[in-house]
Amino acid sequence: MTAQLPGGFLAAGLYCGIKSDASKNDLSLFISESPAVAAGVFTQNKVCGAPVVVSRERVTQSEARGVVINSGNSNACTGTRGLEDAHWMTGEVARLIGCEAEQVLVCSTGVIGHFLPKEKLASGFPNVVEQLASGSDALEAAARGMMTTDTFPKLISRQVEIGGKSVTITGVAKGAAMIAPNMATMLSVIMTDIKLDEQEADLMLRHAVNRSFNCISVDGHMSTSDTVLLLANGHSGGVLALEEDQERFQAALNEVAEFLATSIIKDAEGAEHFITVDVTGARTREEAYLIAKEISESALVKTAITGADPNWGRIVSAAGYAKVDFEEKDVTLDLNGTRIYATGMPVDYDDAALSQEMRENRDVHIELKLTLGEESVRFWTSDLTQEYVRLNSDYTT
Amino acid sequence: MTAQLPGGFLAAGLYCGIKSDASKNDLSLFISESPAVAAGVFTQNKVCGAPVVVSRERVTQSEARGVVINSGNSNACTGTRGLEDAHWMTGEVARLIGCEAEQVLVCSTGVIGHFLPKEKLASGFPNVVEQLASGSDALEAAARGMMTTDTFPKLISRQVEIGGKSVTITGVAKGAAMIAPNMATMLSVIMTDIKLDEQEADLMLRHAVNRSFNCISVDGHMSTSDTVLLLANGHSGGVLALEEDQERFQAALNEVAEFLATSIIKDAEGAEHFITVDVTGARTREEAYLIAKEISESALVKTAITGADPNWGRIVSAAGYAKVDFEEKDVTLDLNGTRIYATGMPVDYDDAALSQEMRENRDVHIELKLTLGEESVRFWTSDLTQEYVRLNSDYTT
Repeated sequence: MTAQLPGGFLAAGLYCGIKSDASKNDLSLFISESPAVAAGVFTQNKVCGAPVVVSRERVTQSEARGVVINSGNSNACTGTRGLEDAHWMTGEVARLIGCEAEQVLVCSTGVIGHFLPKEKLASGFPNVVEQLASGSDALEAAARGMMTTDTFPKLISRQVEIGGKSVTITGVAKGAAMIAPNMATMLSVIMTDIKLDEQEADLMLRHAVNRSFNCISVDGHMSTSDTVLLLANGHSGGVLALEEDQERFQAALNEVAEFLATSIIKDAEGAEHFITVDVTGARTREEAYLIAKEISESALVKTAITGADPNWGRIVSAAGYAKVDFEEKDVTLDLNGTRIYATGMPVDYDDAALSQEMRENRDVHIELKLTLGEESVRFWTSDLTQEYVRLNSDYTT
Repeated sequence: MTAQLPGGFLAAGLYCGIKSDASKNDLSLFISESPAVAAGVFTQNKVCGAPVVVSRERVTQSEARGVVINSGNSNACTGTRGLEDAHWMTGEVARLIGCEAEQVLVCSTGVIGHFLPKEKLASGFPNVVEQLASGSDALEAAARGMMTTDTFPKLISRQVEIGGKSVTITGVAKGAAMIAPNMATMLSVIMTDIKLDEQEADLMLRHAVNRSFNCISVDGHMSTSDTVLLLANGHSGGVLALEEDQERFQAALNEVAEFLATSIIKDAEGAEHFITVDVTGARTREEAYLIAKEISESALVKTAITGADPNWGRIVSAAGYAKVDFEEKDVTLDLNGTRIYATGMPVDYDDAALSQEMRENRDVHIELKLTLGEESVRFWTSDLTQEYVRLNSDYTT
């Protein structure tokens, strides 16, 4: 299904001159025709971009009318002038669409440590407002305007029936890989025409992010500007009256967030394998998460998978330093459905066949099974290739 | 100065058939002629080799007569049979040198998940005991017997006057980089002829390890068998009577440990740069350590240095996710003595000249200066090259 905007939302994306390649969009706008409840999840980095400071404050203070995003220049590490520029961006958009500056959220992504090119943005704002539309072309243009090193736009819609109303959830995202001097932040905007109150929006977004964007890692380097925003404008008339409505909506929201998060991993720089890590049988979700994260961020696990090696030793030892209490006998490990380690000891398996399968398939499934409890987590990552190192070290030449 | 064994110590190293290349040693013995006080610092990994289990128990229970080490086969992930084999190794050595099995410590390093080749070890034990000697050749042969992917043996001696006695501290180590199916643990044995009590040995070893082996990282992957042992036999007659003796001995011990730890980084797989990270002006040493570790383990910082790019953004943002509370304005950053970021903002500098210097020199010095307090830490790491990825992914072909 082609992704569609939810009712009452408009989008636009265009080139305003920030990027050197004029065939690429670098300015995007997502607008709700009526005020929308907003929620946001932001980078935990102590070094964060000015747009994060501005948007983080606004999602808790007022209803939002939209999000303006530029790519190609991140407005991070730009001090007080950066803050002024972020305020200026929202003020200009607010003036053009007819709302308060406080109702406009803002994101920037691209090279850090450079002030925004205000003239280019100023010339782009009237055009991007002019082009606002509800069609899928407008949505895709906006998804493209957020991209930095992404090779494809990331967007999705899901429809769900809530109390007899058809509710739409639509999300866009851009990738998390960082390529310098650009620092390509992960950004996502999720829009829905259901009606949510502020607490619902916040809790449901956090639930979805904890099972999607917080469960992906390309290189473990947390960006200065990571942002996920949710806007709910109520246009469909749908509300969460019953607990089952809430569950159905949360499931659809999770699906949208998971699709966007895994799309980022599928588009990771230089990656040859898409790796799903399931940790099951843990005492708590937190413990499962710690183990899955260490496995997913281990350079040795990632290079082993690049080399099509079912290296149980690297996987099990990464789990061993996750600061979770367990014994070796508690651990069993399957790779692509083949048992390679059971209750603390390696087992016999057809190494050549499994390696061949890893070489021929992009998807790798690691299942680490503990015997400590009932909690589990799913995490996604990419492998570590010579191409990743080349992209991230040879860019200056 | 050629490294020498301290008084009352003997060493030997030889080939007993574990490695495929007969020109490489794979069995080492370090013996004290009289019982020595022992201390040890071991991997925190929940998945640890049988020798770690055995040695960890013994350093707190009895005085030691020596350490037996084999390379080429790690005796990790080998279950109860692995434990029996580790006990067997110490028993055989004890029988040959005439002591209790409990007085022999043990380390193994190499491929994991395989049982020890007991016949080969059994044939090697009488020979290695036969070859025990106090000369520097014997010491180097023993240092070579621990090596896995190391390209050079790592050994050092320091002499220090304590209460009118000449005390020697001699250390050997092998590298931490992991190359599968080998999992090449970091091992070190430090011997001294000063007299220490158990508490002194333990505290002083931990102090030294916290400023050396705990401040290095090649790829952030904690091995299953990392071990640092200290043996003090009192042969010199030196004791730590005065506080200044203690300080002088600690300083020399730290120097030995730092030399060995940095030698491991200098020998890191595929590395082109040796990186020293100084974090200063922190509230606590722990906070400085967290920041230095994140910078040192960031794939993006490491690849930037491979590419000779003074990328302040990657360094500052890695500091930003170290879970230490600070603001951007608290941060100033020098690279090879050139200021590239000051009080929260990038500064103008000659990027081409600095990049040229990084390209032409192996050593890189990152100084991240905070304004929060007086504490600091020094950390060492290597860069991340395509060769590292090749070594760690192409080994199966």
